[in-house]
Amino acid sequence: MAKKQVAIIMGSDSDWSIMQVAEKTLRDFGVEVQVLVASAHRTPARVHDFVNNARDNNIGVIIAAAGAAAHLPGVVAAYTTLPVIGVPVDATTLGGMDALLSIAQMPSGIPVGTMAINGAKNAALYAVEMLAIHDELLEAQLSLYRKEMADEVEQKAARLDKLRAEQQTGGVQ
Amino acid sequence: MAKKQVAIIMGSDSDWSIMQVAEKTLRDFGVEVQVLVASAHRTPARVHDFVNNARDNNIGVIIAAAGAAAHLPGVVAAYTTLPVIGVPVDATTLGGMDALLSIAQMPSGIPVGTMAINGAKNAALYAVEMLAIHDELLEAQLSLYRKEMADEVEQKAARLDKLRAEQQTGGVQ
Amino acid sequence: MAKKQVAIIMGSDSDWSIMQVAEKTLRDFGVEVQVLVASAHRTPARVHDFVNNARDNNIGVIIAAAGAAAHLPGVVAAYTTLPVIGVPVDATTLGGMDALLSIAQMPSGIPVGTMAINGAKNAALYAVEMLAIHDELLEAQLSLYRKEMADEVEQKAARLDKLRAEQQTGGVQ
Amino acid sequence: MAKKQVAIIMGSDSDWSIMQVAEKTLRDFGVEVQVLVASAHRTPARVHDFVNNARDNNIGVIIAAAGAAAHLPGVVAAYTTLPVIGVPVDATTLGGMDALLSIAQMPSGIPVGTMAINGAKNAALYAVEMLAIHDELLEAQLSLYRKEMADEVEQKAARLDKLRAEQQTGGVQ
Amino acid sequence: MAKKQVAIIMGSDSDWSIMQVAEKTLRDFGVEVQVLVASAHRTPARVHDFVNNARDNNIGVIIAAAGAAAHLPGVVAAYTTLPVIGVPVDATTLGGMDALLSIAQMPSGIPVGTMAINGAKNAALYAVEMLAIHDELLEAQLSLYRKEMADEVEQKAARLDKLRAEQQTGGVQ
Amino acid sequence: MAKKQVAIIMGSDSDWSIMQVAEKTLRDFGVEVQVLVASAHRTPARVHDFVNNARDNNIGVIIAAAGAAAHLPGVVAAYTTLPVIGVPVDATTLGGMDALLSIAQMPSGIPVGTMAINGAKNAALYAVEMLAIHDELLEAQLSLYRKEMADEVEQKAARLDKLRAEQQTGGVQ
Amino acid sequence: MAKKQVAIIMGSDSDWSIMQVAEKTLRDFGVEVQVLVASAHRTPARVHDFVNNARDNNIGVIIAAAGAAAHLPGVVAAYTTLPVIGVPVDATTLGGMDALLSIAQMPSGIPVGTMAINGAKNAALYAVEMLAIHDELLEAQLSLYRKEMADEVEQKAARLDKLRAEQQTGGVQ
Amino acid sequence: MAKKQVAIIMGSDSDWSIMQVAEKTLRDFGVEVQVLVASAHRTPARVHDFVNNARDNNIGVIIAAAGAAAHLPGVVAAYTTLPVIGVPVDATTLGGMDALLSIAQMPSGIPVGTMAINGAKNAALYAVEMLAIHDELLEAQLSLYRKEMADEVEQKAARLDKLRAEQQTGGVQ
Repeated sequence: MAKKQVAIIMGSDSDWSIMQVAEKTLRDFGVEVQVLVASAHRTPARVHDFVNNARDNNIGVIIAAAGAAAHLPGVVAAYTTLPVIGVPVDATTLGGMDALLSIAQMPSGIPVGTMAINGAKNAALYAVEMLAIHDELLEAQLSLYRKEMADEVEQKAARLDKLRAEQQTGGVQ
Repeated sequence: MAKKQVAIIMGSDSDWSIMQVAEKTLRDFGVEVQVLVASAHRTPARVHDFVNNARDNNIGVIIAAAGAAAHLPGVVAAYTTLPVIGVPVDATTLGGMDALLSIAQMPSGIPVGTMAINGAKNAALYAVEMLAIHDELLEAQLSLYRKEMADEVEQKAARLDKLRAEQQTGGVQ
Repeated sequence: MAKKQVAIIMGSDSDWSIMQVAEKTLRDFGVEVQVLVASAHRTPARVHDFVNNARDNNIGVIIAAAGAAAHLPGVVAAYTTLPVIGVPVDATTLGGMDALLSIAQMPSGIPVGTMAINGAKNAALYAVEMLAIHDELLEAQLSLYRKEMADEVEQKAARLDKLRAEQQTGGVQ
Repeated sequence: MAKKQVAIIMGSDSDWSIMQVAEKTLRDFGVEVQVLVASAHRTPARVHDFVNNARDNNIGVIIAAAGAAAHLPGVVAAYTTLPVIGVPVDATTLGGMDALLSIAQMPSGIPVGTMAINGAKNAALYAVEMLAIHDELLEAQLSLYRKEMADEVEQKAARLDKLRAEQQTGGVQ
Repeated sequence: MAKKQVAIIMGSDSDWSIMQVAEKTLRDFGVEVQVLVASAHRTPARVHDFVNNARDNNIGVIIAAAGAAAHLPGVVAAYTTLPVIGVPVDATTLGGMDALLSIAQMPSGIPVGTMAINGAKNAALYAVEMLAIHDELLEAQLSLYRKEMADEVEQKAARLDKLRAEQQTGGVQ
Repeated sequence: MAKKQVAIIMGSDSDWSIMQVAEKTLRDFGVEVQVLVASAHRTPARVHDFVNNARDNNIGVIIAAAGAAAHLPGVVAAYTTLPVIGVPVDATTLGGMDALLSIAQMPSGIPVGTMAINGAKNAALYAVEMLAIHDELLEAQLSLYRKEMADEVEQKAARLDKLRAEQQTGGVQ
Repeated sequence: MAKKQVAIIMGSDSDWSIMQVAEKTLRDFGVEVQVLVASAHRTPARVHDFVNNARDNNIGVIIAAAGAAAHLPGVVAAYTTLPVIGVPVDATTLGGMDALLSIAQMPSGIPVGTMAINGAKNAALYAVEMLAIHDELLEAQLSLYRKEMADEVEQKAARLDKLRAEQQTGGVQ
Repeated sequence: MAKKQVAIIMGSDSDWSIMQVAEKTLRDFGVEVQVLVASAHRTPARVHDFVNNARDNNIGVIIAAAGAAAHLPGVVAAYTTLPVIGVPVDATTLGGMDALLSIAQMPSGIPVGTMAINGAKNAALYAVEMLAIHDELLEAQLSLYRKEMADEVEQKAARLDKLRAEQQTGGVQ
């Protein structure tokens, strides 16, 4: 059986600036990605057709991103039993709180796993974690990724220590 | 042409305690009502089929009520060019704020006219106002209704004046 | 009988940058528009006079936009049985949440159909939907508009696919 | 010149349970009170008539209370140059936040002095403070009232000290 | 007796950019103004001394402005029976909501009349309204001011009508 | 390889009244469940030990529920690359908004899939969806479950239709 | 030098139902407690006198609790350099959010350490932690307390495991 | 015994722009500071190791700063009985409200003293206040610091008075 792929569906192409890091992250893990711009409100049939065939098209997880009254993740979840990851996008004057509540507060029966506002990278990592439940190689990559993140924190900490030491001797600020 | 009717769609039968006043109000104005329980997430096809045929079935306005991540009004609006009135229902621990934002913050292109949280009666009156744009009889009924509301305020005011007078002479409290 | 027109009332001329798209959208549908700057607080008589005569002046729907403690739509609705569409304008430090609640939470008896914060275009489309209840030509225009919106989404999707393909081969970022 | 009176206007007679303490407090200070139930939306003319004649009817301050999209205080303020005190009433599922913003966020030009949610007693005290600017007797009453409040705090504190002492010797809980 | 003056107290000199319009507005009405920078937290004695002597120093109304945990208006009100007008200043990342609640939600017994966030001009107008309760000349100025505001709205409306007419004939945008 | 199990971790045994439906739902799908009461703050070692060994103990997905400053899901996610599902519990005076933000707003690198406030059943369904990515039998059960939900909606709709018909003929209320 | 004591100041005796657990917790650690009911607004002098003499009266930490526009902790902090712990009390219709912001958002210069809404027990524990910085015996008590809390979690977990086992064999619900 | 030091832990080096004033303030009081960049989620072991040894390493107080779902202060507090001061950092589109609730709403048993959003300077002052409970010299410095703050307010007030005097005579603006 072919490796499962991940789909990224956005309500608007303007969400791409937020969501492109999700595609990049998935590809960094060697996961194939399908990207679809389709609006729950303006092109409901386009959403329906894609999602309805998703499992047959070898998709294992769907990431859906939307702002404002962000119905897309919930609408996608209504059409499939694949796990749907929702990304609330900060697209209005309310800082993304409207999108967060529109995605997180799904009624009983149709779950959507909600990420942070604009949390595109975590959506990708979460999809990888799902695929890694039964994939030891992918799990090993995730463990390595965690280790690299920890190393990066330590490197940044070291740089900050150096900067602080310079400031205290040289007296900047 | 037959008189246009109004449809009331609810995401859950538990919304009926809130929404039944809408049906009653519409019938008080002599407007025929169709009621449908259908969930945007649990029965999307049921929503789609009803809404798709709504105009052909002589429906002029659709009232859609839902709580939590209240996608139903927006999903209904995506399938029809009939005006959709959304009623956010207070169904979670957030007092209906989640439903209000999920309905009011519709993205550009697909409008939903949002009522107050639990504002079922106003949804009915608003539907009547729409039908009355081209219906002088209905408009006359609305004007009469307004007058009765004003009279009722005055009667309540009179009762309160009497109560206050009694309290001040009799010395209750 | 002459075609019904739509009135746009704003609390301040500073709302025009938000609201002008409503006039343009209405005119694109061939709907005549009357625009009034009038404040519920600074010029209540001006509001009253216009709204009181609105039905006689062949107006079928009133769009009212205001920010902050946005009383204008509710005040307009108190003077007429025409359907009133409220547009909350983001005019303070609270991102329009004050205006949204001031408009959406209308008490029972006097409905206002609330749009999204700054949702001027949807206000126009919603007005057209109301006028189209009994106007097949207008309804046909709306259906066409929906189709064009869907086409536009697909074109943007195609452009994004092309951009992504270029990035992956050319290696930008 | 006769002593100035204070008017209390409520949007609904259901606000009376909250507002009656305002009348009582004013009367305790010897201030005459006029009470009016009148809705900004259901009976705008009733509001207008009363407020328009308020100064001539010897009213010095107007207290206006309303819940939900609480337009009444702002609408009253639009009709008079008398100082208007707004009391947001907790009347919906939002705990009075809708009323607070609808009253406090008045646009520039027409001020309303906003009290706490359900803050009827403070509205009365604030009206007395306004009347006391030029009334030494009333000011003396206010100073006395403050002293009594402070005494009451000390009495309650003494009672609590006694209760705590009993608990620690007697060992309750 | 000398004309009552109005004091403006600010928690920080950085509030002056918001509050200076209050002084200007008061002077436009011929009201004398005293301005004090004094912090409820950093200089409580300075606040206490000024407020304690305010009535003796011929002050009739105190405007107090503060941001963040805006205690200044409440602390001022605790020291005086003069009416205190609170202006919540948008000084943090929360858009002034913290200051609004810190000022508006005063407990029973010590009222503060709260203006909109950054509502410095309305604070001045509200103070003038209080002073005008017993001052017919000041009331006449207020009525004139209202009329000028209404005229200004009409002039702006006329300019917008002209602009729109040009756009439609000239075809800009 | 043995079937993957799902762990449910709660910050407090008082969360069980909310979370027990999750265990029941998982068992209805034939999924084995491990339940752990362990607090991120009171028993961090207990959390760490369980989560660190989770993958070795054949766990495929972890559901973590907590209220207030709900750190448990994020702390669990920090210790494992298994997908973590967070359930914000309504446990304070803020209606669960504190828990929702504490769980949903996870920083980049460590994802948590957030459910609705008190969304225990959806957490279970979401875990099943993850396990069903590579399990056709489980997927078939999910599809059946969806069908049963849709049937239930239709049955409730039929009951409501009957109730409404009775009310209109019998004339209750 | 005598052991430092902890003062608990409340704005109202009605806060005692929330705060009494703080006194009990402190006494359980052998810390002497002074309790004062004093309002920042109704009895500012009473607050000032107590706080001004606090350090001389051997007080090491002050816990201040208040609801609504909760100024007490900030006002206390303005009068002393002792560390002040603020407890926001849920005393209005806003669930304590007003008190939380009024206490937490203190401006630069005068810190208050804010606890959770109604977080009286944590206030006591936090005071003990402060006193334990230089007191090894108190630190040992805290470590023991932590261990007992962890044990309690494990006992509750065991009880829940037993309950679940019974339910699954006996089949309740 | 050596003087107690203060540790500053940040979840990300990007918090340094906010937190560096804390280190500077502590050093101005002659308090030694240890700075650590360590994430509760990305480097939990790094946090654990540092905090576990903090008391042995002569640390008396820990300041922990984090944004978004700000778990760091609570996680630090779970590992130590030293008092932990939490600084919510404004790091997302929600203005720091997510971080504030994630830190302030700690459950019973593990206290964190929460500062204002971005309140790094107050965190340092609060730590000094804790250390000054048993350190008269440090207390004297704090009293002096308070006096200098008060002087600074008076100087700013004087400058503003001068500026206003110039504006009124010279007529700027």
